[in-house]
Amino acid sequence: MRIHLQNPHDDPLFDFSRAMWDAAAARAPDIGGGHTVSVGATPADFAAAIREAEALVTDVSVVRAFFPCEAPHLKLLFITNAGLDRLAPFTWLPPGVALMNNRGTHAAKSGEFAIMSILMLANRVPAMVTHQRQGKWHKLWGAVVGGRNVTVVGLGTLGGATAEHAARFGMRVTGVRAHPAPHPSCEQVIGTEALDDVLPETDFLVLACPLTDATRGLMDRRRLSLLPSDAGVVNIGRGELLDQDALCDLLDQEHLSGAVLDVFTPEPIPPGHRLWSTPNLIISPHTAADDPATYNPHSLDIFLDNLRAWRDGRSLPNRFDTVRGY
Amino acid sequence: MRIHLQNPHDDPLFDFSRAMWDAAAARAPDIGGGHTVSVGATPADFAAAIREAEALVTDVSVVRAFFPCEAPHLKLLFITNAGLDRLAPFTWLPPGVALMNNRGTHAAKSGEFAIMSILMLANRVPAMVTHQRQGKWHKLWGAVVGGRNVTVVGLGTLGGATAEHAARFGMRVTGVRAHPAPHPSCEQVIGTEALDDVLPETDFLVLACPLTDATRGLMDRRRLSLLPSDAGVVNIGRGELLDQDALCDLLDQEHLSGAVLDVFTPEPIPPGHRLWSTPNLIISPHTAADDPATYNPHSLDIFLDNLRAWRDGRSLPNRFDTVRGY
Repeated sequence: MRIHLQNPHDDPLFDFSRAMWDAAAARAPDIGGGHTVSVGATPADFAAAIREAEALVTDVSVVRAFFPCEAPHLKLLFITNAGLDRLAPFTWLPPGVALMNNRGTHAAKSGEFAIMSILMLANRVPAMVTHQRQGKWHKLWGAVVGGRNVTVVGLGTLGGATAEHAARFGMRVTGVRAHPAPHPSCEQVIGTEALDDVLPETDFLVLACPLTDATRGLMDRRRLSLLPSDAGVVNIGRGELLDQDALCDLLDQEHLSGAVLDVFTPEPIPPGHRLWSTPNLIISPHTAADDPATYNPHSLDIFLDNLRAWRDGRSLPNRFDTVRGY
Repeated sequence: MRIHLQNPHDDPLFDFSRAMWDAAAARAPDIGGGHTVSVGATPADFAAAIREAEALVTDVSVVRAFFPCEAPHLKLLFITNAGLDRLAPFTWLPPGVALMNNRGTHAAKSGEFAIMSILMLANRVPAMVTHQRQGKWHKLWGAVVGGRNVTVVGLGTLGGATAEHAARFGMRVTGVRAHPAPHPSCEQVIGTEALDDVLPETDFLVLACPLTDATRGLMDRRRLSLLPSDAGVVNIGRGELLDQDALCDLLDQEHLSGAVLDVFTPEPIPPGHRLWSTPNLIISPHTAADDPATYNPHSLDIFLDNLRAWRDGRSLPNRFDTVRGY
């Protein structure tokens, strides 16, 4: 198969190399060999490769730059991002091409980021950091997380890993998803329509779902206000899942004890934006889910898993549903 | 037995109440009943009680305020702190009185604080917070902690809990203690004299030992400089375990990737002190180990365990050795 790996322009840290491909192919000898593989970075590289490529492995920024385009032989398009909301609507996708996202890659890193964030909220680190900014020694006492309630919205790669860590720390985990089904790390899993019922009992809210028409603005001002005044909020999904201004208002008013956010509207946060000075808020610059040391090897392993499924005529584990949006 | 609980003046959040005693006594019916128990807070309360008390449960600040004093019937002195370095030398201790510290109480809370701190260093949170202070969006990538090296100095209550969490996250744990012996969560346990050998391979250094003559200044400038330039430092022991100025210099020079400190020299940190503005440093105001919701109940449970041992003629689990200093 003719496989092309197209690197984006803006982040060489995450570039694919020929050596990475060879290593991934060696890890999966039954499917890794016998392909014609090219690696490119420039528009000319892309233009040359896309005329022949049967599979393309690339990221959201490349798709946004070059699609729609003529891709007469393309069958498989593997995107190395998990959230493809920036590619919607999917009218640019050539008919007959199977679109895949990179779900799974982010589990280890984002799970650790999420449990770290919960522990930071339980230990009042957002408030500590605010006091530190003011040069003020002010004791605020934290608590252990065991027995406390965490509500995890989304139980995919990110939310599933979060729930697993939280359960291991003895927390009571409520999962929230569009179509509820039991989850081994959750005491209960509820549908999105029942979210209002659990918010008043939530100590920690973790947003870990994809951004879709159904989840945009899910945590609006009304729902955020249903949280207890000592609750903390973590967002590792997308900035648009919550009403950012309402969250800042609640933090200003100390209606919430703190927040750890990895995603924002817009990104990057402009200089002088109120987020920079909102108290009891930790800003992580959209780096929660990605570990450069393991990202590309994992991504290629996942791509090869999908390639194997495709060869064998099975459904693709990472097939992206352009209608539901994840 | 006549038992007196004397509360300190400065922190009503941690005050003992009669109800707390009754609840603890009910949890340990074989040893909790039949005592004459008083609770006090003022110097007059102390003066009245100490003339008759056989057991005193109180904290470091009370001992510093009132000892040496006449305590003709006193047999057991239980201090609700773990580190008693501020009571050295122990010449104030009436002869024949068994001194106990509160080791054990802090395991759950400080273990969670320590693994949180390690995850924060792995995710570059100290640097994030520094950039946030500057209103600067700057992506710095973190990494998962699995497989990375953590060196835990001290394997008592704090260090033991730290090692246990770290092992559960798949980290390679090296324990350091005065008298090395295998530990279930450690790949290796070394003596303090071998510390220099492991520092160059240490990704995360956690100081969790008591402050004694042997540990004061343990991490001096030379030893801190043996750490790799991307290493992180956590201190939940005592400020004097490390050369604080050397640590600040290394952070200024980005020779270390970050630090999370709960203890300082002096405390509180004075306004304008360089610690407040040192980059890539998180300041926790000596709150890591204490959870007000569970602190006093745990302390009384531990005291009653010791009282049982004393009644039965066994050695006291929390007996404090005034010579070795822990």
